[in-house]
Amino acid sequence: MTDIAMIEAARVRLAGHVRRTPLLSSPFLDEIAGRRIFVKPECLQHTGSFKFRGAWSAISALPTEVRAKGVIAFSSGNHAQGVALAARMHGIPSVIVMPSDAPRIKIENTRAYGAEVVLYDRANEDRDAIGERLSRERGLTLIKPFDEPLVIAGQGTTGLEIAEQAKEEGIGKADVLVPTGGGGFISGVALALEAKAPQFRVHPCEPQDFDDVTRSLASGKIERNAAQSGSLCDAIITPQPGDITFPIMSRLCGPGLVVTEDEALHAVALAFSRLKIVVEPGGAVALAAALFHGETLGDTVIAVCSGGNIDVDVFRLALDKFPT
Amino acid sequence: MTDIAMIEAARVRLAGHVRRTPLLSSPFLDEIAGRRIFVKPECLQHTGSFKFRGAWSAISALPTEVRAKGVIAFSSGNHAQGVALAARMHGIPSVIVMPSDAPRIKIENTRAYGAEVVLYDRANEDRDAIGERLSRERGLTLIKPFDEPLVIAGQGTTGLEIAEQAKEEGIGKADVLVPTGGGGFISGVALALEAKAPQFRVHPCEPQDFDDVTRSLASGKIERNAAQSGSLCDAIITPQPGDITFPIMSRLCGPGLVVTEDEALHAVALAFSRLKIVVEPGGAVALAAALFHGETLGDTVIAVCSGGNIDVDVFRLALDKFPT
Repeated sequence: MTDIAMIEAARVRLAGHVRRTPLLSSPFLDEIAGRRIFVKPECLQHTGSFKFRGAWSAISALPTEVRAKGVIAFSSGNHAQGVALAARMHGIPSVIVMPSDAPRIKIENTRAYGAEVVLYDRANEDRDAIGERLSRERGLTLIKPFDEPLVIAGQGTTGLEIAEQAKEEGIGKADVLVPTGGGGFISGVALALEAKAPQFRVHPCEPQDFDDVTRSLASGKIERNAAQSGSLCDAIITPQPGDITFPIMSRLCGPGLVVTEDEALHAVALAFSRLKIVVEPGGAVALAAALFHGETLGDTVIAVCSGGNIDVDVFRLALDKFPT
Repeated sequence: MTDIAMIEAARVRLAGHVRRTPLLSSPFLDEIAGRRIFVKPECLQHTGSFKFRGAWSAISALPTEVRAKGVIAFSSGNHAQGVALAARMHGIPSVIVMPSDAPRIKIENTRAYGAEVVLYDRANEDRDAIGERLSRERGLTLIKPFDEPLVIAGQGTTGLEIAEQAKEEGIGKADVLVPTGGGGFISGVALALEAKAPQFRVHPCEPQDFDDVTRSLASGKIERNAAQSGSLCDAIITPQPGDITFPIMSRLCGPGLVVTEDEALHAVALAFSRLKIVVEPGGAVALAAALFHGETLGDTVIAVCSGGNIDVDVFRLALDKFPT
């Protein structure tokens, strides 16, 4: 199980390979929110999302001979790119299993980061069976996207940085808002902050209709989303909280904050004009919550922008809908 | 005259107030350029440009009683915003003299950062006379945009960070490319690197038809631009190199690199898709030079992206023209 020692060990393995993203702010955002907002832009991380931290952590912890055979992951999104680049930087092969109807740009990017992309037909093929066969034949190690202690530990290094940067800024107390899908990222961040800034409160942020974590924390048991797709916040859509992450979140996080898709797009537009960063809608839900749902929060909020891999058409939509 | 001691003193005054921007990179950009490219994104600095460093440096160095009376600047762009916010953070008044036909958004932003904006009619009023009268009446100190040793020293702190970050990345030798208008920024960076990374070579980058610095360095004397406006790279358009900056650039910088407006827009689009940062065309000329004019450069380039205050229509134009 992930603990602060694992997160600190991950940080040692990540040193020199992972970017320390800065802490950004803008008086314009503070004014909209009616409170101080700081933004931790993990969209500036390698491959454009925090996923690279977890991928590096898991791959770098493998025994040398096991690692040399390569890794495999199932993902059509940010996890795919994170694993692909982390594997390439380790000089090992990676296989990413993606649905054949995944956006072409994501397939191309994953290949460009050095992965072998294996496509499967969602309707007629069993993803897990394909993965198991490849793993067996080639000795590949599966890197899970969130329900994996080493991945959580790697992503938790973001929390260590937040604690340090908050101290540098003189922030004594804060609500820390994290875009949440399966819960790996927020679990790591919450464990790091429990140790390093226990006075901070960590909240998952989700889009409307995909608020499984918020509902699960409220009810005390794992709740599922009715739909599995159909959101512009695709990067953080998962069926339900993870078995490993849910107990961590139950102990350390909440309550959750839920934003509309339009609020997420508005946050994308404001991040463009006021922070000069590119954020995808799923990565912007925490900033959206800080801007538009701060009533229950204290006077200082740290919002993580978790990723920036946005389709240009969606970005245009955000700028059109919310001129700033 | 600015020297490394002044830059290091500026850094002490800037500590805790100015962001240490990270060093970014992308394998996709390296592939286009055929060499390693690192990007120093000063667009992520307070107010969206490096100008804040110089403004903070100059204001923080004033004697307390002089500073308390306030500062004044002439600018319709990034310098205006940098001076306005640095003054507000010092708790002192600022007056920014802007042409009445400046873009409304820039006027509004400058006011929102706390400045009193005084508008003048370009055709019928004398900017300098207005400034002199206000300074005399209120005891305001003029903060010049580039031909001022304290401003150059503050902007030179970017160079100290580049030297440190390059060392962390294991970069032994590099060409450092800097978007250049009047030459204050590049002069500070070059002075810092002369002391901290003397094996680095610093090159000014400019847009076609506004390449006064490149031509001045080639001819050995100050050359002027024929036109004073009409470029999307407005942030770095000045009539000619400064009297203080030209000797520094002559000694430490060159040759200059010149890019087309379309190349700058292409760099804006690639910074969006590959680095997740928002850069204005003038701020993107160094990245454009690294990407498209690297023939004369070594195998490692550090390109400074100097600002991100781009009109949304110009940003849309870049994305439309250069799908990535």
